[in-house]
Amino acid sequence: MTLTRLGDYAVRAVIHLAMKNNGDLATLTDIALHETIPRSFLAKVMQGLCKVGFVKAYRGKNGGFALAVNAADITIRDVVEAVEGAIRLNICLTRKGECKRDVLCAAHPVWQEAQNALLGVLDKYTIEALAQRQKKNLSKFLNV
Amino acid sequence: MTLTRLGDYAVRAVIHLAMKNNGDLATLTDIALHETIPRSFLAKVMQGLCKVGFVKAYRGKNGGFALAVNAADITIRDVVEAVEGAIRLNICLTRKGECKRDVLCAAHPVWQEAQNALLGVLDKYTIEALAQRQKKNLSKFLNV
Repeated sequence: MTLTRLGDYAVRAVIHLAMKNNGDLATLTDIALHETIPRSFLAKVMQGLCKVGFVKAYRGKNGGFALAVNAADITIRDVVEAVEGAIRLNICLTRKGECKRDVLCAAHPVWQEAQNALLGVLDKYTIEALAQRQKKNLSKFLNV
Repeated sequence: MTLTRLGDYAVRAVIHLAMKNNGDLATLTDIALHETIPRSFLAKVMQGLCKVGFVKAYRGKNGGFALAVNAADITIRDVVEAVEGAIRLNICLTRKGECKRDVLCAAHPVWQEAQNALLGVLDKYTIEALAQRQKKNLSKFLNV
């Protein structure tokens, strides 16, 4: 029951882009170095984020990546689901009737409640809020 | 970010055993049929549950499985963790210092908060409570 590397790295990458000033691009190497993401893996992550329209890739000598959406409009859940697909704590929660035991199963409503609790937290934080927090952490760290 | 089949089946199997009267054993076939678990997979699940001491296997012609602990003393989280290992929403939560970015990373406290919310729900329900609920569901279903 663990987030994949894909989801974790996508969140880091998007926070990194949200910390940039408007118009500033980040290269793959920038993101890989600052967010400690293996470069080869990061290429796959960025591809996924471009595909869903959260990120835009600019080609050329001064090319790079930038957010294509407002960081205040996407949450940490949005980013995870963009690359991992919908978060489902158990396959019985995929859709109503996915598991024929729903009516009898005492565990089913517990999985549902646990999933709601988890999503409630991931829905609460926008990428903008996290970028602001990371900027503060960074300046605090550099001033020590 | 999905529970493995191992965790799901272990919870179903343990609830099934907790629904039995004291001393009554359940065979592998009983559990597989009633809880819709592939028999070959179930053998592995029961082995895991016996290993941690939650279940005891009785050999012989009238053998089978029984809970080896009080169902009121174990929660749905205990059962999942018994077969899947500790629930960690992200590998950075495995232990303090697992990820060197902890101090800077704005996502880290969100993963922690989401994990706490998830575990809070899974800690809340004992297997006894779930067995009682499943008994009620079953008798309601059979009376329709």
